Amino acid sequence: MFAIDPAFNLGAEPLARLVLCDVWLQRDARYPWLVLIPRVAGAVELEDLPADDRARLVEEIVITGAAVRAMGVAVGRPVAKLNIGALGNVTRQLHIHVVGRRPDDAAWPGPVWGQGEAIPYDAGAVETVRAAALAALAPQEGGAPGRVIVS
Amino acid sequence: MFAIDPAFNLGAEPLARLVLCDVWLQRDARYPWLVLIPRVAGAVELEDLPADDRARLVEEIVITGAAVRAMGVAVGRPVAKLNIGALGNVTRQLHIHVVGRRPDDAAWPGPVWGQGEAIPYDAGAVETVRAAALAALAPQEGGAPGRVIVS
Repeated sequence: MFAIDPAFNLGAEPLARLVLCDVWLQRDARYPWLVLIPRVAGAVELEDLPADDRARLVEEIVITGAAVRAMGVAVGRPVAKLNIGALGNVTRQLHIHVVGRRPDDAAWPGPVWGQGEAIPYDAGAVETVRAAALAALAPQEGGAPGRVIVS
Repeated sequence: MFAIDPAFNLGAEPLARLVLCDVWLQRDARYPWLVLIPRVAGAVELEDLPADDRARLVEEIVITGAAVRAMGVAVGRPVAKLNIGALGNVTRQLHIHVVGRRPDDAAWPGPVWGQGEAIPYDAGAVETVRAAALAALAPQEGGAPGRVIVS
C-alpha cells in the first residue's frame, strides 16, 4: 500500500496533488522549491515505476518547474535555472526535487542539497509562494476544486 | 544546429550514442558516473525538449542507470542508490547526470556535484568501466536505425 514516508514532513509540507505525484512545498525561503512524490508503493528508483508512469512523471516535472518559476516571480526573484534532482540517499522513497536557482542564491553554482540550514518562510511569504504555485498548477486541475488536482 | 559545449570535455569523454542522447563517461574514479546529453539544439531546460523527446529521455535515464550499476559491479563496488540530476548552473546545455552512490563513497549522503576533486581512472579501470557500460547499453542497439552505439 502506498504511504508517504513521515521523514518528508521534517522539511516540507503537502501542497497539491497531480495525476501521478503529490507535490510538497519545501519549507525553505532561500529557494523556490517543490518536491514530487509519485504515488507508487515501494518505488525507490525511476525504474521502479511502470513506463507509462515514467512518461507522466517527466511531464509533471515540467509542470512543477513552471510552478517553481511562478513562485520566484511572486517573491521578486525570478528563476535563472531549474535544478532537478532525484537523490534519495537519506530518504529512499522516490521523490524528485524541482528547485529554482539564481546566481545570487545561497548555494550557487553548487547544488542546494545539504548546504546550510533552511530559512523558514514568514507567514506572508509562504502564502504568496503557495498561491503562486497553485495558480501555476491549476490548469492541471481540469475543473476540480481547491488543491486536488486530478486529470 | 546541435553542438556539444566544449566544456563537457573538461571532466568527461564521449562513450556511446543512444536514440536521443549522447552518453559521456565522467572521468572520476570515485563514482560510476555517466552524463546524458540530448541532441537537441539550444535545449537548456527539460521543457525545451518536445514531449516525445522528454518521454524518450526518461527511458534513456533508466537505461543509463543500468549501465552505471554495471560499472559499479565491474569495479567491485555495487551501487546502492542512483542519483539523477539536471542542474546546469555551470554548463547550461541540457545534460543529465546519472551517478551510482554507496554509503562508503566520498560524498555520501550529500550530492556529488562540486564536492572535492575528481580522481582519474587508471588505464585498466577505465577500460573495465567502459566495457561494462557499453555491454549494458548494447541491448539498446536492437538493429533499429539510430540506435547506434559508438564508443
